[in-house]
Amino acid sequence: MLLKRFYDTKLAQASYLVGCQRTGEALVIDPNRDVDQYILAAEEEGLRVTHVTETHIHADFVSGTRELASRTGATKYLSGEGGPDWSYAFVDEDTVLVADGDEFMVGNVKVEVMHTPGHTPEHIVFMITDTAGSSVPMGVFTGDFIFVGDVGRPDLLERAAGVANTMEAGARSLFGSLKRFELLPDYLQLWPGHGAGSACGKALGAVPSTTLGYERIANWAIGVDGEARFIESILAGQPEPPKYFAQMKRINKEGPAILNGFSRPPEVPVQRLPDFIQEGAAVIDTRHAGAFAEGHLAGTINIPLNRSFNTWAGWLIPYDRDIYLITDEGRGEALNEAVRDLAMIGLDRVAGHVPGEALESWHAEGAARATVPMIDVAELARRMEAGDITVVDVRGASEWQAGHLPGVPNIPVGYLADRYQEIPTDRPVALHCQSGGRSAIGVSLLQSLGVPDVINVVGGYVDWRAQGLPIERPEPEQAAV
Amino acid sequence: MLLKRFYDTKLAQASYLVGCQRTGEALVIDPNRDVDQYILAAEEEGLRVTHVTETHIHADFVSGTRELASRTGATKYLSGEGGPDWSYAFVDEDTVLVADGDEFMVGNVKVEVMHTPGHTPEHIVFMITDTAGSSVPMGVFTGDFIFVGDVGRPDLLERAAGVANTMEAGARSLFGSLKRFELLPDYLQLWPGHGAGSACGKALGAVPSTTLGYERIANWAIGVDGEARFIESILAGQPEPPKYFAQMKRINKEGPAILNGFSRPPEVPVQRLPDFIQEGAAVIDTRHAGAFAEGHLAGTINIPLNRSFNTWAGWLIPYDRDIYLITDEGRGEALNEAVRDLAMIGLDRVAGHVPGEALESWHAEGAARATVPMIDVAELARRMEAGDITVVDVRGASEWQAGHLPGVPNIPVGYLADRYQEIPTDRPVALHCQSGGRSAIGVSLLQSLGVPDVINVVGGYVDWRAQGLPIERPEPEQAAV
Amino acid sequence: MLLKRFYDTKLAQASYLVGCQRTGEALVIDPNRDVDQYILAAEEEGLRVTHVTETHIHADFVSGTRELASRTGATKYLSGEGGPDWSYAFVDEDTVLVADGDEFMVGNVKVEVMHTPGHTPEHIVFMITDTAGSSVPMGVFTGDFIFVGDVGRPDLLERAAGVANTMEAGARSLFGSLKRFELLPDYLQLWPGHGAGSACGKALGAVPSTTLGYERIANWAIGVDGEARFIESILAGQPEPPKYFAQMKRINKEGPAILNGFSRPPEVPVQRLPDFIQEGAAVIDTRHAGAFAEGHLAGTINIPLNRSFNTWAGWLIPYDRDIYLITDEGRGEALNEAVRDLAMIGLDRVAGHVPGEALESWHAEGAARATVPMIDVAELARRMEAGDITVVDVRGASEWQAGHLPGVPNIPVGYLADRYQEIPTDRPVALHCQSGGRSAIGVSLLQSLGVPDVINVVGGYVDWRAQGLPIERPEPEQAAV
Amino acid sequence: MLLKRFYDTKLAQASYLVGCQRTGEALVIDPNRDVDQYILAAEEEGLRVTHVTETHIHADFVSGTRELASRTGATKYLSGEGGPDWSYAFVDEDTVLVADGDEFMVGNVKVEVMHTPGHTPEHIVFMITDTAGSSVPMGVFTGDFIFVGDVGRPDLLERAAGVANTMEAGARSLFGSLKRFELLPDYLQLWPGHGAGSACGKALGAVPSTTLGYERIANWAIGVDGEARFIESILAGQPEPPKYFAQMKRINKEGPAILNGFSRPPEVPVQRLPDFIQEGAAVIDTRHAGAFAEGHLAGTINIPLNRSFNTWAGWLIPYDRDIYLITDEGRGEALNEAVRDLAMIGLDRVAGHVPGEALESWHAEGAARATVPMIDVAELARRMEAGDITVVDVRGASEWQAGHLPGVPNIPVGYLADRYQEIPTDRPVALHCQSGGRSAIGVSLLQSLGVPDVINVVGGYVDWRAQGLPIERPEPEQAAV
Repeated sequence: MLLKRFYDTKLAQASYLVGCQRTGEALVIDPNRDVDQYILAAEEEGLRVTHVTETHIHADFVSGTRELASRTGATKYLSGEGGPDWSYAFVDEDTVLVADGDEFMVGNVKVEVMHTPGHTPEHIVFMITDTAGSSVPMGVFTGDFIFVGDVGRPDLLERAAGVANTMEAGARSLFGSLKRFELLPDYLQLWPGHGAGSACGKALGAVPSTTLGYERIANWAIGVDGEARFIESILAGQPEPPKYFAQMKRINKEGPAILNGFSRPPEVPVQRLPDFIQEGAAVIDTRHAGAFAEGHLAGTINIPLNRSFNTWAGWLIPYDRDIYLITDEGRGEALNEAVRDLAMIGLDRVAGHVPGEALESWHAEGAARATVPMIDVAELARRMEAGDITVVDVRGASEWQAGHLPGVPNIPVGYLADRYQEIPTDRPVALHCQSGGRSAIGVSLLQSLGVPDVINVVGGYVDWRAQGLPIERPEPEQAAV
Repeated sequence: MLLKRFYDTKLAQASYLVGCQRTGEALVIDPNRDVDQYILAAEEEGLRVTHVTETHIHADFVSGTRELASRTGATKYLSGEGGPDWSYAFVDEDTVLVADGDEFMVGNVKVEVMHTPGHTPEHIVFMITDTAGSSVPMGVFTGDFIFVGDVGRPDLLERAAGVANTMEAGARSLFGSLKRFELLPDYLQLWPGHGAGSACGKALGAVPSTTLGYERIANWAIGVDGEARFIESILAGQPEPPKYFAQMKRINKEGPAILNGFSRPPEVPVQRLPDFIQEGAAVIDTRHAGAFAEGHLAGTINIPLNRSFNTWAGWLIPYDRDIYLITDEGRGEALNEAVRDLAMIGLDRVAGHVPGEALESWHAEGAARATVPMIDVAELARRMEAGDITVVDVRGASEWQAGHLPGVPNIPVGYLADRYQEIPTDRPVALHCQSGGRSAIGVSLLQSLGVPDVINVVGGYVDWRAQGLPIERPEPEQAAV
Repeated sequence: MLLKRFYDTKLAQASYLVGCQRTGEALVIDPNRDVDQYILAAEEEGLRVTHVTETHIHADFVSGTRELASRTGATKYLSGEGGPDWSYAFVDEDTVLVADGDEFMVGNVKVEVMHTPGHTPEHIVFMITDTAGSSVPMGVFTGDFIFVGDVGRPDLLERAAGVANTMEAGARSLFGSLKRFELLPDYLQLWPGHGAGSACGKALGAVPSTTLGYERIANWAIGVDGEARFIESILAGQPEPPKYFAQMKRINKEGPAILNGFSRPPEVPVQRLPDFIQEGAAVIDTRHAGAFAEGHLAGTINIPLNRSFNTWAGWLIPYDRDIYLITDEGRGEALNEAVRDLAMIGLDRVAGHVPGEALESWHAEGAARATVPMIDVAELARRMEAGDITVVDVRGASEWQAGHLPGVPNIPVGYLADRYQEIPTDRPVALHCQSGGRSAIGVSLLQSLGVPDVINVVGGYVDWRAQGLPIERPEPEQAAV
Repeated sequence: MLLKRFYDTKLAQASYLVGCQRTGEALVIDPNRDVDQYILAAEEEGLRVTHVTETHIHADFVSGTRELASRTGATKYLSGEGGPDWSYAFVDEDTVLVADGDEFMVGNVKVEVMHTPGHTPEHIVFMITDTAGSSVPMGVFTGDFIFVGDVGRPDLLERAAGVANTMEAGARSLFGSLKRFELLPDYLQLWPGHGAGSACGKALGAVPSTTLGYERIANWAIGVDGEARFIESILAGQPEPPKYFAQMKRINKEGPAILNGFSRPPEVPVQRLPDFIQEGAAVIDTRHAGAFAEGHLAGTINIPLNRSFNTWAGWLIPYDRDIYLITDEGRGEALNEAVRDLAMIGLDRVAGHVPGEALESWHAEGAARATVPMIDVAELARRMEAGDITVVDVRGASEWQAGHLPGVPNIPVGYLADRYQEIPTDRPVALHCQSGGRSAIGVSLLQSLGVPDVINVVGGYVDWRAQGLPIERPEPEQAAV
């Protein structure tokens, strides 16, 4: 048996290839949309992808199950659990619906399906036995059921996808699913669907896999006794899920479009961008926030191409518009990476791109340039004291609650487009976040919405603390968002 | 004024960007389909492409005029000369038809149009004056009219595009066009549309540009006095034009499809290729001939991705089929290069690709493998003496006429598919060429056509001569295509 | 705690980064010489490498411990076990010698040292506890002690490094070390130092990690009861270790040279290679075997740049010569990869490189070209029947013993240089292996040693079997090498 | 004959390969230090570099003549003109000293040497005749003698290299050298050593080559009659040469070190940089100015890796220090490009690098961060009116003289390190330039020199003018630097 883990850092998401070298067959579990990676890895090992499956209808990325099956001719194994509301809409003759207790073979590898509702009603996991090597199972692909140090949150459906009154029922199901695992042996490996940084859980570890025995000792959720206490704990303190999760659920249930690879958008002359903006397109400037600050085209939104790119694109870019990208390296990897990242969350309408160099030389020639003033925290403190500036903290609500600048209110950057009219604009508006990343995005967004005088605070809360400036903490009842 | 030359080695084709830095406008002359390069170069210089033109309806590559204009919003300047048979079919409101004596400005750069029929009836050239620097012209973009050391051949229409009885008329027109240039000054630079290696002329130099004064001394065609002698000389000894030239003429006249960039075909599992072949697709194995020889999939054609890739693809691949590519580096530049090369000559239907590594590990796992026996010239000589082998020389007719292996007939590789049934198959068939490149292509082609026992002679005629083996030269009347 | 695994496919070798996010400290276990990867990964996670360690003195690759410590300022933790013969020679003030029972902290991560002799006398393993998360250990970095499905072979010292009479003592130690693990809990993860394909064990699984409980059930070596039976089993059927392992032991004990990165050798003109060969340099042609067959420079050795490149370079290239490389892509990744691969096993004297394209165009111009005749198995069978060919099987001894072509003797390719004079050269000599890879290397080696008429059999034993041709199996006493 | 032009955009420098396809020999003229490009190009054309020459001792880049000859075994042809002060110090047995009237053959290509003093005393040019094609010359490689639209400045020696009282003598020589060209024919092509943007002339055109006839009409310097007027004109308005030109002269005369390729510096952990700065190393942060502004390490100098990188590095980085680089893409092309750019001007001591991502994640973890406040021109105008800011214009003297912000003095960025103590630091110091590039460099330099409160004005003079803000122009006698 061969096992290979694929980890997408930006999605904090794990998928797996399990192959039988003797028969050349292979199974992919929870593929994302970058399916070339699975085909290539299989080929490198002399395998062919014959089976594709997923643990549940994902909310945080577009599933690659359909694309991978289409490309390889593999059979899809989809959950038939969860009832009619959770039925896949793209079941075809190459699909096998599986339920609790079902098993199938991938060469000599036995795959047993267990229904583990909680995170979602249709959630299943896969217990693997390498029958060529041993008659006992080796481990379980747990998807968003059990993570390293945590379990999958059961509140996403209600909070992100708007399926009312499902949080508690989900938590109760989850408690039951965990009970079923009590009988399994300690030595089993657990291979989860997410790592640290995912919004699908709150305390995920940065270790790729774990064992059932270790989690019995170290995982807070497995130690909880009493359903009621479990439910209370699991629902407390979950971070706000990204707005685009609702889109993902819908897309993944209905069946994602088959891309046949990420297409490379054509280069367009920089001079045409203003027209495209006029016509309603979203122009994302993916350059570094500082480059954007030095000079950008009015009306563009700055989402730097770093680990958080697809998260913020998901929060901020509408799904019904053409997208144009400004990238740092005209013809290079930045463009491919951005296109891939957007496609991973279903933003497929990239219609063109402009290399950042073109934008910069255009500015240097004297063309219209918008800029972003940047001040450091010392200057911010001076201007707050002088009273000639409005400050907004664009971090997450829980960060704000843990401590913030005196008197400074909180609007998380993901909600700025909805709530920016709360901000008085009679004075310059300074945005800050933890260390300057999100506030830069926020500034570009406010500028694109017509707010006249916006300033980015570089260094943010980290530098504010490092310089010993005063903070305050809200009383519990002040907590907002 | 700014002048930048773009040279495509594989097409042996030159295109040019002429810009006016003061107004930011730029003209592109004879763009090929890789239009990103012009947009990028313009942007790097702070220019925008506002004018696009071409000297004539090209026969050897797909014109990028339409794509570039579409992408940039530039105005197209197309020849209105040559009569109804040579009228562009994609004239629209953004097109200006130009004729002899017309001029237009690109910023401060004056462009004068001269009608120079001969290579084709509608052929025009562009004389450039940098009015900001001087009132006299600097040079002429001569397209396929005058090259370095040669002139454009007037026989292509008849030989490649099948327009009967045009060779002599073309030659006569060309003689007249050259006459018109007698009055122009010596110091003028000439910037031609092709360099050494193009099939559009027979003696092109490997120097990027020349001057009218120098060509008056050194160019054989300008020195000829007497129309009749000129016509005789110009029509003599022209190499056989590639079969795909007829396709190019048609596509470029009707208006090439707008690609919006070269799309990247998806990776497909190697195991699916036999089905695709069965369904009629062309599978091109672009790996090195030796790698192909060691092991390939039956039914694939080997056209190695080197300088001659698009030439042989144009000769050998039908325009009405899906194409799958096997490339050396799974996800890297080889694939992009191959897709681009094919698109340059209008082979746009690339439906998928397989990395060569996948093919090799598939074979290593025991999957079906076809091979190509390779022998050197010493072994070839032994087997010719033993009389147990049939040998065919697949070089061009003129190469064969200049000397060949005793008794060995000639079928140029581009005609093998049409003529392979002339070859007796009672004994193994060995193909040779100059140094092994074309014979390798030919072997793969014969194999794909079902010829049972084909051998590649490595080293070819070069090694045969190097080892002092005997050759023969045909009497003039023996000469054949 | 953060855990990241680094897997080098060509070495089949795993190394690990363990970090404490709270303090920013990190430990690297068993680094190889490509130390940039650890520095970069640490930086991406906001960590700094403060501790470096290794489980033992490696025999199959050059250790990166010294280079990584030098570059980062980290402290080295080296085994003080094993006695004077197994003492590191590069202990300095930044080195801590550790012994059984020692422990040290990397931030909040506790590392306990256990002495586990067997594979080597000084071998240690590291048990890890994430004290921030739990008081119980999470797993053990087992180096070459326990693999997935196997244990580290105790015979390498004697067979590869020539330390006489150590096999049995090693096996006995190993048995004892395994005994000590009986008391540890089932749920512990085991993170081994090698995966499938390594020469450090014989039945390594292709799963990245395992658990102690699972290995108790599935690992043949842990199930064996009785020291004597264990010793007999563990010493049986181990493959022949590569000759360069002795060099590795020496280098890793004395202290590998600090490279400060892999240097990029200059490009040299192809015309200079014959002089370099004359002066004793090794010229490795890393192109595909087929490309080499079509035309190469006499005196060069063909080791294609694939997964086995460093293995065969280690077997065949002397450590005391300058090395020149011929690579497929003149200036691209192939060169960097080849230089890195060679440095990984201590072949650091790369003095220059030539792009394969240069070699090919040189040949096309008529320069001296050596070729390799290639025949398929059908032709081989014909010529064996005709009796006009000598055939040698260059696979490993155990492959040969499992079945071979009738009457064909075995000289493994790694021993060809030592034993080629056993081969009669009155007739052409054909080499074959499993599917053509090793025989191609062997042919190039024989050519470079002056054997006049050598042929490569493409497809090898795999194709021979696929065509139903007859084989024979030796009586047990016939077994050789 | 084959002619290939190599153009280095950052140096605005042209070098040339001239080859004879029949004999396979090739000459390189004015190579820079990136000699791989010539070797590769020769190989691609089936040529070998047998001759290397240069027109003069360059002042703006390190010559590659010595390295190229060493690598290829080619013979060096160096100027023997100019007297003892202009003699090369690295003449060896593979060097031929050439003088006016000498000629040598490169295959069938005849090279005639003409002494053309002016730019420098030893300056020579090369007239080329393709004897295989014609008995008349085709053109002249003019080095820094005649450019497109200009001639080489004769004042560099005095201004840049400090050779006193040579300006006028040089101008006089140049006038004489131009006279000699009066007898040559109009049609000759001229292939100059520099293009637009070079500091070796003041009005260089952006057209790659020209003709003698055209320059006779269009080049201001050839039209001047009367030596006195010529001398006055040629010495007027020449821009200030970079400080590092003196180093280049010295290095190129003595013989540049042979690099054997650009070496890739090792990655070092970001945490070690403060120590290196402490020990006197120069740390160049090559990221975009905006990225630097958002957060950098105190003591580093920001020279963004764009077209001006080597110019500013030459101005600002001492030649006697170790250099560490911070680059945008950890392991990618940015590092190679920066190392190459520095080596092109002799800054060879790059000892290590840190990927920008590491720096950024280090900051995000809370590590020390310095920032650069950025204001736009509107804010600058407000603060100038409020009188609470000191403003310095860091553009070139001639730019300042053509118009500047009211009351704002000029210190060109290249002189900031020498003159920064002229700037009062009682109020914040804002730097501006044309559009923000040079002022960003200047700010980083002042910060590294300990100036406490420095601000970058984004958009600079371009935006100031675009917003209609007032400027002033100095009386002629006010002109400074």
